Amino acid sequence: MQTIKVNTTKPYKIIIEKGLLSRTGEEVRQVTAAKKAVIITDSNVAPLYAKTVAASLENCGFKTAVFVLPAGEENKNIAAIEGIYNFLAENGCNRKDVLVALGGGVTGDLAGFAAATYMRGIDLVQIPTTLLAQTDSSVGGKTGFNLTAGKNLAGAFWQPKLVIIDPNTLNTLTAALIADGMAEVIKYGCIKNADFLQKLLALPSVIDAAEEIITECVQIKADIVAADEFESGQRMLLNFGHTLGHAVEKLSDYSGCSHGQAVAIGMVQIARLAENAGLTKPGTADLIEKLCLKFGLPIASPYKMQELLGTIALDKKSDSKGINFVLLKKPGEAFVKNFSFKQTEDFLLNAE
Amino acid sequence: MQTIKVNTTKPYKIIIEKGLLSRTGEEVRQVTAAKKAVIITDSNVAPLYAKTVAASLENCGFKTAVFVLPAGEENKNIAAIEGIYNFLAENGCNRKDVLVALGGGVTGDLAGFAAATYMRGIDLVQIPTTLLAQTDSSVGGKTGFNLTAGKNLAGAFWQPKLVIIDPNTLNTLTAALIADGMAEVIKYGCIKNADFLQKLLALPSVIDAAEEIITECVQIKADIVAADEFESGQRMLLNFGHTLGHAVEKLSDYSGCSHGQAVAIGMVQIARLAENAGLTKPGTADLIEKLCLKFGLPIASPYKMQELLGTIALDKKSDSKGINFVLLKKPGEAFVKNFSFKQTEDFLLNAE
Repeated sequence: MQTIKVNTTKPYKIIIEKGLLSRTGEEVRQVTAAKKAVIITDSNVAPLYAKTVAASLENCGFKTAVFVLPAGEENKNIAAIEGIYNFLAENGCNRKDVLVALGGGVTGDLAGFAAATYMRGIDLVQIPTTLLAQTDSSVGGKTGFNLTAGKNLAGAFWQPKLVIIDPNTLNTLTAALIADGMAEVIKYGCIKNADFLQKLLALPSVIDAAEEIITECVQIKADIVAADEFESGQRMLLNFGHTLGHAVEKLSDYSGCSHGQAVAIGMVQIARLAENAGLTKPGTADLIEKLCLKFGLPIASPYKMQELLGTIALDKKSDSKGINFVLLKKPGEAFVKNFSFKQTEDFLLNAE
Repeated sequence: MQTIKVNTTKPYKIIIEKGLLSRTGEEVRQVTAAKKAVIITDSNVAPLYAKTVAASLENCGFKTAVFVLPAGEENKNIAAIEGIYNFLAENGCNRKDVLVALGGGVTGDLAGFAAATYMRGIDLVQIPTTLLAQTDSSVGGKTGFNLTAGKNLAGAFWQPKLVIIDPNTLNTLTAALIADGMAEVIKYGCIKNADFLQKLLALPSVIDAAEEIITECVQIKADIVAADEFESGQRMLLNFGHTLGHAVEKLSDYSGCSHGQAVAIGMVQIARLAENAGLTKPGTADLIEKLCLKFGLPIASPYKMQELLGTIALDKKSDSKGINFVLLKKPGEAFVKNFSFKQTEDFLLNAE
């Protein structure tokens, strides 16, 4: 079993091992004396894993109740939050009980926000079941939901008491969802570990190396989050590829392009632009491109840079300080560079 | 001007002075470089004070926008929160902007929760305009809203950057709302300052002594909150009179009895019971009774103790550790005593 400690204000552990799901109860019992454990999951994940998790919790003395969210990013809204609140209240949950988020990023974000705000905060255990959630969204305490006006506009920082990662859950993911997660995996290598990128390049199978891959990514994220819990500085590095990526996602109406696909495009594009501007070591963009292609991710934007620019500027219009781009000095080393709106225009459009 | 510092994780100031409202801009500018200040208020308070506050903020370089909530506890719900989120998004608010809560406890709780969770947290300034909010709810960082299943079941701890108290706003309150606030004022004396109770007993006019009264209460609350920001210990003392009080409020369907009235009844009743049980110095209940009557507050419960007991037990059924009652050793000195359910029954019903 791999164990990673996250040194936030209230430190917690991330544990990673194949088969862990069936030991959920023992592990959760280590961090709480709760009587009740409410499992929040979604309609895709419930039939696969809810029984195993609930049985393990029951065996360790927890009373359990399972709330099933409708799957899908379009349900990451305030109505889902209200549904969770009401379920917790109906089941007589109090401040001492624990909420278990079982599923992908949407489930983790929603359950996390409910845990952060039900009775002003109750304990949370994250059990991410997608590669994206296992390597990224389940660690770091960001929770939230979408408003009509924009994604993740409402939210809270709420660190879990424990993160349980069972790489066996990847066996039930589609290839597309594995690829989606690999975009963030590549990102971690890009910003912090060039050797890891080389390993990925030589990798025969994601599934076989899942435990190792997840551990490396989570370790990088844990270090960054511990250094900057509330995102005032270096945590920004985690946004490499995301500024252009978010614009791609938005222009595709969050349906044409998945998050991972958009981030892949964003990483390749920004690396190429920065290389052309002499800010990034030559060859970096090619390496990222090769990795994205290897793992089934797109590298070319379906939108013109002019369109992306418009979307980015609109997003940031209320902040007069321009735009912070995360760039690579070389693979494994990232930095933040602030561009004024004029500089952003020059930087993005010079390429075309 | 009275200035009280609250030493929470992120310390902040409470400033108290007649006429402060018209200097809102200068004071808010001391604590933020925000460009926008969004004023959240309600339909009662907006016509009275929104213009003054907005004009002062504009004079100090803030762009302002005013969101008016429908007044009333029945509107302290998730729909109101959604309304605030959407207003913030429509007005292009970002993480650097500031939210100004102008009104009573409901407005402060709703605006506070929105500030805690919009973009994972933005700055908040509280400008309480009722005696209850000025002496109690605006200090300490509790925010939230009601669910169908119960009051304040959703919420967050979110300390303001600044609390601005202008006692002149009491001039527009009804006598009933002044009385409502006085219940909490009496409570502060009961738990921490016997001399203050004597002063209140001799007081010719609440309005004339408002600045002094508010300052004393806020100082007591600030000290308690600083010692126990997240309510794990001594902050519980603030609940003196509230266990029975909440039961009275609930039985009255939150309409027959105001919060202050219910707390007054709760304080008198619990003091009397504890006196009979030899836990509280004789004469204490009489003193509280005298104070409540002086300030127009009820002292007798419209409900039988058996009914109150049923409501309390129902509230706490999921917590097997019985019930924590806040009792007085004597006026000015409080302690927490845990009763099992059986003991609670004996304690409450022996009186009748």
